[in-house]
Formats: sequence, structure tokens, C-alpha cells
Amino acid sequence: MKLNKNADTKILIVGLGLLGGSYAKALKKKGYTVWAIEKKQESVDFALAHGIADRASTAVEPQWIREANLTVFALYPHVFLKWVEENAALFPAGALLTDVTGVKSAVVSRIQALLPQGVEYVAAHPMAGREVGGVENSDDAIFHGANFIVVPTEANTHGGVETCKELGRELGFGHISVLTPQKHDEMIAFLSQLTHCIAVSLMCAGDDRGLVDYTGDSFRDLTRIARIQEDMWSELFLLNKEALLCQIEKFRQSFDALVDAIAREDTETMKEMMRLSTARRALFDRKGDTK
Amino acid sequence: MKLNKNADTKILIVGLGLLGGSYAKALKKKGYTVWAIEKKQESVDFALAHGIADRASTAVEPQWIREANLTVFALYPHVFLKWVEENAALFPAGALLTDVTGVKSAVVSRIQALLPQGVEYVAAHPMAGREVGGVENSDDAIFHGANFIVVPTEANTHGGVETCKELGRELGFGHISVLTPQKHDEMIAFLSQLTHCIAVSLMCAGDDRGLVDYTGDSFRDLTRIARIQEDMWSELFLLNKEALLCQIEKFRQSFDALVDAIAREDTETMKEMMRLSTARRALFDRKGDTK
Repeated sequence: MKLNKNADTKILIVGLGLLGGSYAKALKKKGYTVWAIEKKQESVDFALAHGIADRASTAVEPQWIREANLTVFALYPHVFLKWVEENAALFPAGALLTDVTGVKSAVVSRIQALLPQGVEYVAAHPMAGREVGGVENSDDAIFHGANFIVVPTEANTHGGVETCKELGRELGFGHISVLTPQKHDEMIAFLSQLTHCIAVSLMCAGDDRGLVDYTGDSFRDLTRIARIQEDMWSELFLLNKEALLCQIEKFRQSFDALVDAIAREDTETMKEMMRLSTARRALFDRKGDTK
Repeated sequence: MKLNKNADTKILIVGLGLLGGSYAKALKKKGYTVWAIEKKQESVDFALAHGIADRASTAVEPQWIREANLTVFALYPHVFLKWVEENAALFPAGALLTDVTGVKSAVVSRIQALLPQGVEYVAAHPMAGREVGGVENSDDAIFHGANFIVVPTEANTHGGVETCKELGRELGFGHISVLTPQKHDEMIAFLSQLTHCIAVSLMCAGDDRGLVDYTGDSFRDLTRIARIQEDMWSELFLLNKEALLCQIEKFRQSFDALVDAIAREDTETMKEMMRLSTARRALFDRKGDTK
């Protein structure tokens, strides 16, 4: 299917947290009809009071599921799996599903196996977030210029993948790419999970309350993501455990090499690593990134 | 001495790089007379052309040194030491000196020992910077709301320390504190040097050029400081080697504990560390810090 950009296209969002709410806001602005299913009554009330969704309900509304042109799951992985287990039969043939889940190998094929014949699920991962959760903190500006990764399997159709990419563009993402679940999980282990492990470890390593009076921006930057939702992140870490441990090992080797150079006062190795890091980091620059 | 806030107060800056230039800009705005000694002709030309200093010279001007009410050194540590070795005799009794050097134990007592009787040097460390160097990138806005640390020794007078704190306030710093050289170096090893080690190691660990298309803000944040001036930072690391290795060890223990919990699928330990990091990081929050 193609996303027809008008109010006749109904997008159902399951899970109105930070990401679900931000999707809803972005899609409403584009003129789509947005429905939401969310188990917390206060999130439903908030979404309706603030016009974030056209309709919202704590109940699993069979009619919305049948009528939706696209359903987006924005749930914790285990909740997503359980929801689909219980409700897969409600989707009609031709339905298209996607998600925002942060790990893929452990989720995608299991979800696909649960769905009825003719129901297509194309996995996706919006690389955007905030340190605060909940629909009340949702903000579609977090997508602007950010990366959106579509993660198809062999079970997916060209049309399904294209619609998913179009969704990324409609949401305002700056760059859309396509990765296999395995490659996605490697990437995410390095770029996101390892960095969260480092930030948490840094905060846990120093317990001096005075630090805040002496800190510069470096430490603030490295620990911004140390404010972390422990239920979600411990689940994501374990669902991607092998890939994460592998990336941790790569980081450890690199860190050990630098520490060893410091201990041996091997200035040339230190400088070589700094030159490499400077050159590589320059590729990541974007406007406003250098301060 | 007190800083008289008018053009009769002459502040001499030795070294017109990013920090020296930013000091000059901030102090000129406050109405002080700013002179600068800088060995690079193009930096002198730039400073004069842009009104960053009232006078600037590549020569060590004995008269400026004699007349300055305050001299600020913004040089690499070894250059600072060499400069003072060669020119200490030019300072008259009653002169007040300060600096911006990022390590203290290895520098402060050596500088103090080189100075003539009656010449006071109060060490300071402005916790602000940019990933780009040079007077052409100087910007006094980097000081706004940042931390300024005065690092006196027993050789310093109450008056000298107070003037140095006043300088921090005049530059626009948000918080002024006082630490011993040893405590400063521990702090800086943890907050600044360790974080730079981590950022460099992270960039060196992954060589996939495609990363930039998949990254989220976490990785960008953790590696902003991976653009690093290798000459300055390798010097700073080695001058603070013992303290740095000690903080590295603390980080490693914390990181190992988290990695071990992941490997053992010990969710409770993972969550406990995440809750601790979240609570501690909350203390660092400032307006605009949570995104």
C-alpha cells in the first residue's frame, strides 16, 4: 500500500509513550487520521485532551485494528510480543504493521511467525528519543534530521518496505536507511547500547556530590544518557546480549590500548589514536555539533 | 590587589589561543585594558584586527609585564614552564599571575618556585572549552554558567585568591570554587581526562563509515570530545598520569560490574546501577540539559 496523505488514511498507534505520542503528533500534523490504543487511562486522557490522537482507547478496539491502513507498535519488546500473541487474529489480510523496537533479531521473526497469512510486519527503528518518557513528553521535533532505519526480512514485500520508508520521511527523519536485523543489532549494540553502558558506569564510578560544581561539558555530554529507564534498557540489553558483549569487547580492546599507552608514556600511540578519533569524529559533524 | 573595574586596570594575557582569546574578549567587554603576548604573528594580527586586545605583540614586552595589574597564562604546560623560567625576573614585586592550565600538581609548585620573591601566582582552571582551537575561534560565551576552579597553595595570600575568584566572576563563570592541586587533579582526571579517553577509545573501536547514517544522539554526545588536540591532551594525560590511571581503574571496575551483570543476565544488578546512575545524573541537570 501507499500512504495516501489525507485524513482517509488511518494510522493506529499501539502504545502511547514518548515515541508513540511523538509519532501521533507528527502524523496528525501531516493530516493523517490517528487512532491510539494504550493501556494507561491517563495517557489516553492526555492524548485526547491535547489533540494528540483523533481517537484513543484503553481497550483493544477490533474495528480500529481492522480499518487501520497502518499500525505502529511502540511498546516494550515483551509487551509487543504478548500483544501480538493475543490479538494477531484481529488483523485482516493486507494489513501493514511496523514498530519502533530498539532490538530486532530477537523480535522480528517471532512477530512475523505470529501473524496470520497476508498480514505484513516491516520492522523499523527511529533513532531518536529523550531522557524523559511518557506521552506528556512526546515531541515530534526529536525526529527532525535524525536517522530512521528500516529492518526488513525475506518475509517482507517491496511495497511494504517502501511504505515504511515513506513513513520515516513523513515523520521528518533526515536520513532513511535499510539494514538486516543482524546488522541493525550490531550497529545498535555499538552506537546505542554500549554508549548507555559507558554512561551508566561513569555515573556509578564516582560518588562525589561536589562533582557538579567542577564539571565541564565533557562529563555532562558523556552522562546525559545515564538517566535511563531501567526496565526498558535492561530488557533491550538482554535481548541483544551477544551483539552487545561483542561490541563491549571491541571497546575494551581500544580503551586498553590507550590506557596502556598512557601507563607506558607512549606518546606516539596516544597521539595516533587521538588523530584517528579526530578524523573519524569529523565525519559525524553536523551544523551546531561543534561547540 | 583588587581588580578595579576600569580601563586603568591592565590585564596581560600570555598565549592567545582559544582560551586566551576568550579571556581577552570577556575582559575587554568589561572595560579592562587588555594586552597580549603571543608568539604567532597571525594570532597577534587577528587579535588586533578584531579588537580582541588593545595591544598585542610577538615579543616579550618587559614594560607590559611590569605594568600589568594581572597576568594570565594560557599556554601548554611545558611552554608555560619554559616561559616563566626565561622571563620570571621581569615581574616586579607585587605582581599577580594566574593561568588556565588543565593540570595543577605537576605545574603549580614548579612555577611558584621559579618566581621572584613577592610575585604571586594563583592557579586557576576555567572548565570551558571548544573542540576547535585558536584565537579565531575564541568566544567568551563558553564561560557563561560554567565552572571556574581556583587552585591555591600555601604560598598564596587571601588577597590573591580573592582577586582570582573575582576574575572568574568577571569572566562570566556561573560557579567559582576552590580546590587543592591534588583534589583538582583527581577531579579533572575523572571528569575530563577519563571522559576524553573514553571518547577517543569509542571512535577508535568502530571503523564502519556507515555509522553516521545510523547513529542517534547518544553516540554523538559521547564522542563530541573525540575531536581532540593530540599535542595538548597527550601532555595533560602524562602530567596527571597517576591520578588518571587511578580514575580509569574506578571506571573499569564499574564498567566490569555492569558487563558482568549483562553476561550473567542479572537483571537486578543492571537495574540497580541504572537507578543509581539516573539519580546521580539528575544532580547535574540544568536548564536545557534534558532533551
